[in-house]
Amino acid sequence: MILPVRLGERSYEVTLRPGCLRHAGELLDLNRRVLVVTDAGVPQEYAAAVAAQCRQPHVFTVPVGEGSKSLAVLERLLKTMLEQDFTRADAVCAVGGGVVGDLAGFAAACYMRGIDFFNIPTTVLAQVDSSVGGKTAVNLAGVKNIVGAFHQPRGVLIDTETLSTLPRRDISAGLAEAVKMGLIADAELFALFEAGDPMSHLDDIIFASLREKARVVAADEREQGLRKCLNFGHTVGHGIEAAAEGALRHGECVALGMLPMCPPALRARLEAVLERLALPTGCDLDPERVLAAALHDKKAVGGTVSAVLVDAPGSFRFAHMTAEDLRDRIALVLRQNESKRTVPIDSQAVRP
Amino acid sequence: MILPVRLGERSYEVTLRPGCLRHAGELLDLNRRVLVVTDAGVPQEYAAAVAAQCRQPHVFTVPVGEGSKSLAVLERLLKTMLEQDFTRADAVCAVGGGVVGDLAGFAAACYMRGIDFFNIPTTVLAQVDSSVGGKTAVNLAGVKNIVGAFHQPRGVLIDTETLSTLPRRDISAGLAEAVKMGLIADAELFALFEAGDPMSHLDDIIFASLREKARVVAADEREQGLRKCLNFGHTVGHGIEAAAEGALRHGECVALGMLPMCPPALRARLEAVLERLALPTGCDLDPERVLAAALHDKKAVGGTVSAVLVDAPGSFRFAHMTAEDLRDRIALVLRQNESKRTVPIDSQAVRP
Repeated sequence: MILPVRLGERSYEVTLRPGCLRHAGELLDLNRRVLVVTDAGVPQEYAAAVAAQCRQPHVFTVPVGEGSKSLAVLERLLKTMLEQDFTRADAVCAVGGGVVGDLAGFAAACYMRGIDFFNIPTTVLAQVDSSVGGKTAVNLAGVKNIVGAFHQPRGVLIDTETLSTLPRRDISAGLAEAVKMGLIADAELFALFEAGDPMSHLDDIIFASLREKARVVAADEREQGLRKCLNFGHTVGHGIEAAAEGALRHGECVALGMLPMCPPALRARLEAVLERLALPTGCDLDPERVLAAALHDKKAVGGTVSAVLVDAPGSFRFAHMTAEDLRDRIALVLRQNESKRTVPIDSQAVRP
Repeated sequence: MILPVRLGERSYEVTLRPGCLRHAGELLDLNRRVLVVTDAGVPQEYAAAVAAQCRQPHVFTVPVGEGSKSLAVLERLLKTMLEQDFTRADAVCAVGGGVVGDLAGFAAACYMRGIDFFNIPTTVLAQVDSSVGGKTAVNLAGVKNIVGAFHQPRGVLIDTETLSTLPRRDISAGLAEAVKMGLIADAELFALFEAGDPMSHLDDIIFASLREKARVVAADEREQGLRKCLNFGHTVGHGIEAAAEGALRHGECVALGMLPMCPPALRARLEAVLERLALPTGCDLDPERVLAAALHDKKAVGGTVSAVLVDAPGSFRFAHMTAEDLRDRIALVLRQNESKRTVPIDSQAVRP
């Protein structure tokens, strides 16, 4: 399946095909110097397979985790390109999850003021979310994605065979972003999640998510308005993520963050979908900490924060809500409630 | 005088008016948080005057010199913006020369993936050259401008009153870039230099240079082709600059670098113009060192380097030349020749 992302002279294609990583050299222009960036948690044969298809590959492996999204690691990438005599005609290719894509993309964005970037995401989250949109960044002083660029890739390969080595928890967490795309933009995609086992049509789910995201990004490349709909689930989600201090995956927090932004009937349907994915529908964090983190994250102006609401699958609306309103909504997922699966925050094991 | 720079949604205006720095608040939207970046060599009252017109100014003064164009100083700027709670709605304003503009512009380009940037250049070189074009960058591992972004300013103020505090040598060096614009793009501008004392119509010279540069940039924002004509004088010029190891100003090297790229009759006219500006027309560096540096800089492919030639003022052509051709041309300005003013490289004093 091929998805054209229409952004004028920055247009490109996303190719979704099981096994396409082994054909990267046919699908992307790798006939040059290519810095292949991966991390130590990605099976090294993926980067090796891509490197084998480049004329002059140089594989750069960063440590696993968010810590690699730093100016210090960025500098090491840039110096490596300099040492290898990279010119404007050369390229960077990310092989890995969101951390690798964000870091490598930013290195491509600022080396010689921008060289070609290819992205081969190998996690569900990176495949459905960060592979389309052109957002690249590193973190600074504990603030995520504060330094970066909009730099569209020249091409993206989605090889769903790479997901076979992923822990089930990571697959589910990644699919939370696909559920999000269904809720805000594509009722049929949400119906796929309600219809049965998502794992049996993973390719269709990923493709539909990307198609909807590409549509939003094409309409608002630099996040001046519409694109903010992609923040659905993220206002409360970011608050939960901060308060959980690493115990929850990003997608799990988005799952929890979406629930209070739906009316009761839709919330019940969403809970059923999340439960089938083994995603949490409640957690036992301190509501006031979550609220404080959510308010801080949004830098509330004039006492209200902006949020995205979904009343029916396939549509959304923006709303300004007071801290009190937000507190009430947070309580919907944080209340200790025996009827809901709550996440044991003191443990990494979220599966029952 | 107002010069519109036409770049679609990234269009902006350059205002050239003596004293306009004191009216920055009327000409630019400074009603927000503004990081005012300057360096210790710029009279501090300039940055103070701009800061006084911002709602929430924060003045950041970097050390004088190319050393401030580093990732380390960039990080300090970005951290300061974070600490001061800068949002996407806030701005960065450069007050100083090219170093300050390049550094501050890149900070604006990558903070939150891009916030507004204003430029108030206070040297001739920055006013004529770097204030239009959107090139921002820092240096890395001794390589100039290797990490950066194309990030157009939202507005540029050219206050020629700031030039009154500049050493005459810096004014002349900056004007070399204006001579360059005349030669490649505007015969009338070159005629202004031939007609009499350039200092008596400095504003017109700066404005005409900017107008021509804006035209080139509008046609080729990201330097894919035409914009490379701005490299006229820079092939040999960069070689001389590297070999001179800091003894010559950039503009002085460009002056020297233009001479061998003109036919004899025009070269004689250009020499007369440069002499009137007290710019060098020859120097006593080792020709082989200059050649090696020029070839390295251009990363010669297949034995030829690209260069820009001017046969008559107001027009140019691109050419590929062999190392031998380049050697012969370099000899034109490096030959010891009693009839020419040669630069005493072992001294900073270039004036007779």
